[in-house]
Amino acid sequence: MTEAPMRRFDTPDLEELPEDVRERITEEREEAGFTPNVFPAFAYRPSHFRAFFEYHDALVNDTALEREEIEMLVVTVSGINDCLYCVVAHGALVRIYADDPQLADQLATNYRSADLSERHQAMLEFAELLTESPGRVDDAAVEALVEAGFTREQVWDIASVVAYYNLSNRMATVADMRPNEEFYTLGR
Amino acid sequence: MTEAPMRRFDTPDLEELPEDVRERITEEREEAGFTPNVFPAFAYRPSHFRAFFEYHDALVNDTALEREEIEMLVVTVSGINDCLYCVVAHGALVRIYADDPQLADQLATNYRSADLSERHQAMLEFAELLTESPGRVDDAAVEALVEAGFTREQVWDIASVVAYYNLSNRMATVADMRPNEEFYTLGR
Amino acid sequence: MTEAPMRRFDTPDLEELPEDVRERITEEREEAGFTPNVFPAFAYRPSHFRAFFEYHDALVNDTALEREEIEMLVVTVSGINDCLYCVVAHGALVRIYADDPQLADQLATNYRSADLSERHQAMLEFAELLTESPGRVDDAAVEALVEAGFTREQVWDIASVVAYYNLSNRMATVADMRPNEEFYTLGR
Amino acid sequence: MTEAPMRRFDTPDLEELPEDVRERITEEREEAGFTPNVFPAFAYRPSHFRAFFEYHDALVNDTALEREEIEMLVVTVSGINDCLYCVVAHGALVRIYADDPQLADQLATNYRSADLSERHQAMLEFAELLTESPGRVDDAAVEALVEAGFTREQVWDIASVVAYYNLSNRMATVADMRPNEEFYTLGR
Amino acid sequence: MTEAPMRRFDTPDLEELPEDVRERITEEREEAGFTPNVFPAFAYRPSHFRAFFEYHDALVNDTALEREEIEMLVVTVSGINDCLYCVVAHGALVRIYADDPQLADQLATNYRSADLSERHQAMLEFAELLTESPGRVDDAAVEALVEAGFTREQVWDIASVVAYYNLSNRMATVADMRPNEEFYTLGR
Amino acid sequence: MTEAPMRRFDTPDLEELPEDVRERITEEREEAGFTPNVFPAFAYRPSHFRAFFEYHDALVNDTALEREEIEMLVVTVSGINDCLYCVVAHGALVRIYADDPQLADQLATNYRSADLSERHQAMLEFAELLTESPGRVDDAAVEALVEAGFTREQVWDIASVVAYYNLSNRMATVADMRPNEEFYTLGR
Repeated sequence: MTEAPMRRFDTPDLEELPEDVRERITEEREEAGFTPNVFPAFAYRPSHFRAFFEYHDALVNDTALEREEIEMLVVTVSGINDCLYCVVAHGALVRIYADDPQLADQLATNYRSADLSERHQAMLEFAELLTESPGRVDDAAVEALVEAGFTREQVWDIASVVAYYNLSNRMATVADMRPNEEFYTLGR
Repeated sequence: MTEAPMRRFDTPDLEELPEDVRERITEEREEAGFTPNVFPAFAYRPSHFRAFFEYHDALVNDTALEREEIEMLVVTVSGINDCLYCVVAHGALVRIYADDPQLADQLATNYRSADLSERHQAMLEFAELLTESPGRVDDAAVEALVEAGFTREQVWDIASVVAYYNLSNRMATVADMRPNEEFYTLGR
Repeated sequence: MTEAPMRRFDTPDLEELPEDVRERITEEREEAGFTPNVFPAFAYRPSHFRAFFEYHDALVNDTALEREEIEMLVVTVSGINDCLYCVVAHGALVRIYADDPQLADQLATNYRSADLSERHQAMLEFAELLTESPGRVDDAAVEALVEAGFTREQVWDIASVVAYYNLSNRMATVADMRPNEEFYTLGR
Repeated sequence: MTEAPMRRFDTPDLEELPEDVRERITEEREEAGFTPNVFPAFAYRPSHFRAFFEYHDALVNDTALEREEIEMLVVTVSGINDCLYCVVAHGALVRIYADDPQLADQLATNYRSADLSERHQAMLEFAELLTESPGRVDDAAVEALVEAGFTREQVWDIASVVAYYNLSNRMATVADMRPNEEFYTLGR
Repeated sequence: MTEAPMRRFDTPDLEELPEDVRERITEEREEAGFTPNVFPAFAYRPSHFRAFFEYHDALVNDTALEREEIEMLVVTVSGINDCLYCVVAHGALVRIYADDPQLADQLATNYRSADLSERHQAMLEFAELLTESPGRVDDAAVEALVEAGFTREQVWDIASVVAYYNLSNRMATVADMRPNEEFYTLGR
Repeated sequence: MTEAPMRRFDTPDLEELPEDVRERITEEREEAGFTPNVFPAFAYRPSHFRAFFEYHDALVNDTALEREEIEMLVVTVSGINDCLYCVVAHGALVRIYADDPQLADQLATNYRSADLSERHQAMLEFAELLTESPGRVDDAAVEALVEAGFTREQVWDIASVVAYYNLSNRMATVADMRPNEEFYTLGR
């Protein structure tokens, strides 16, 4: 018997969900071979589900960043925010997109111990600052990204990924979303 | 001459924006009598604009909370995150929706000094914990909301508002969005 | 009916106060058009009242700083210390002395988002460090003020204002002093 | 040759000080057998000197607390704020007033490791909270003092001592005031 | 080609190490099938090597705790201290000793999201407090362990494991010890 | 009657301890003229006693640092960790080895207020970082030591002393070890 997608809220019945939400969940299941728990969990409020995944899709499809960079940001931010679902699920995506079986565990623990280009080191330093102390972000912090070679558009996209996972981490932790067991081993 | 909507990114030309984005901005201007700067700023990436405001609309329209409670959460979270745009813009909304000219300044400074029901005190304590230490949210923190009289659905909605403004605050600070001068005085 | 000046201690009867204390309170009322609540509140202990306002008067009258700079320091420090009375009362003074209706809200939320000269930026960075981490003040922190153009005497005066409001903020918060409603709107 | 009273500001010439300031310094020297460095240091601004010591005198002379309790508060607060002058000078006073050669070192390091009545444990817990997180002081924190047996007046006095040394610690650290060597050994 | 055991210090030549150190390293390699990098790394100072592993052996062999509990403590502490080597190496040991492929990732991210008995929840809360704020450990913190069912001897052993990995984590991070690639997948 | 060596665990009977442990305790008493309480306290578990003191002996005997430097590190780290036993006992050792009656109180309170060479300033900055935020130690932090003139071997030894007292401080605080009264005055 599989674990419930989240522990602090009842997961809605797939059958009773609006058509478009049900379809998206089905697509995800077909693509991944299993249904990542964030989908049925977020269907708790279909209106939130739609906006949340529309935002997610924009972040990964309409971006000046590499997908690998996006997932590196997600795991680093989620590690700082101590978010189990996001560390485990996006850890699998880091392993797959970066084609590196160890990078996710390194980023989740401490990006300073990961093998990173100076560019990615700067990117994750910014992610750390924006996550931990958003009010301390200043011109110097943004300029450090530009000096590391990022365009203005990429700065926006980095900030957006960090900001979005500061939302996601909080929802996943409050709901106590459970990572599907597949995520723990994918790409190792 | 009016101040630019944000200082760290160029604001796109209204004319060059996709039709739907332009229309939303026009509607907002007509409703408020001025264009709140978050709209032209977020149009930097139309795909983000759409998801961001769809999420916002869901939070305020499809909710088990009072609008006044939502805005109280926003100002409290934004004060903790030291976010100028959100404190000033939503400060105006607190004054209007709560029909109280002082509450916003109280919440932005320290919700412990505001006149609050026990219910709202509990709501803002949870908002503070979820904003400052998301990884420390546990069963006891969620149960405290239930004991203060919130339904499960309201707990989800409180968490969603807090999480969403943890995204918004970070985007507004990175972009250095400027509060329209109207917001400083509205509802005082 | 007006709100009590403070909530955690009984405010003394004006009639029963020593002559000099009563006179000072009367002068303040005549000057401001209302009695700022910090005066009757601090009269709880007349001996403290005398020293507290003597110190205050020395800080604003015998100083190498502009009054506007003093009030900018006060609002920044009080914002960091989450002190409602001081943010609201001195916010009014910033608006008046700096002749700027928005600066106080900017400083109370995040001085990094205010329009400041480099000199004032350096002054408020020092105020933040001295408020949050007094033990970390070192030669470099003091030299940064000198490099920003402050004389030694001005450094003493900056430190004194920051130190004094670290006292005031704590007394106002423990007593739960209430800002007079006039302060919320003065100078907007 | 003795060490200068402070390192970051020039100490004024005793001869050139106003009569009343010079007299107070002379009295202190006669009483202690040496001139505690805080006196010549604070004479940097005679107007501050007068208010600072008037406040100090009010705190120790017009109080509902025992002098021993006042000095225990001072050393605890100064230890939290990492202030060398105040820990060493008031450490001597704790040894003398509490007639205990070890208590000062215990309080400066960690009041949890000192031998304290429940009353004093509560007093120092409050001092710690008010020093570290002034904005988190709430009704419960104040009521804990009342439950530990303190009168309202004593609560005011405790808060005042803590607040005042949050001022003093900051001035002593910015000035880099040096504890007189006598203080290191007095009362051991 | 394998990665060096640590990056900030040269690893000594096995041949040049004292006999007893070399023998211990050989034993470890034979037992694990590979040489865990902490062994050659700590051989940088043979005198430290001997004491460090003698202490380790005492902690796991002369204990009132289950080995599974010891490794749970190690991963929790190492996650809080952001120590890559210890999280990855002892993560493998948690998977093996607890016979649970997911527990290590849960503990490294956030023990509040792990499936734990109340006893182990209490154990890890204590580990967190002792790691993050050693000076705040008080009678109540120790009594919470006793109330959760631990004997005095077990309390000593829990404290010892936490204290020892506060040493180990710091050495591993300063040396930048690299987890052997075997550890990343063992027991998954 | 003398105070018990620790308050949260029963101290074992000297007579019932293993021969080697008893001998070490006797030696220490003969050398110091009294039995430092850490010895009978750690004898709670003879296997820990042996490894703990073997490590200690390696740190002070097989080292590229001066003994005075080691004790300066210990007092600084113990002050940060608020550990009474270690501050007081090693404070005495700083006074003796550095032949300076004031240095220990300065380091325990705030190393920034001590008279230090740039070399020792750098050493204690590193100790502070490694104690407070072990996961933030990076190449730059280690290189700062090298630039201050320390050899690689000395860097290892500095890190080892800091790491070891992060263990010791935690055991002393959990056990509530009491400094012998002799330590309070030795070397003053």
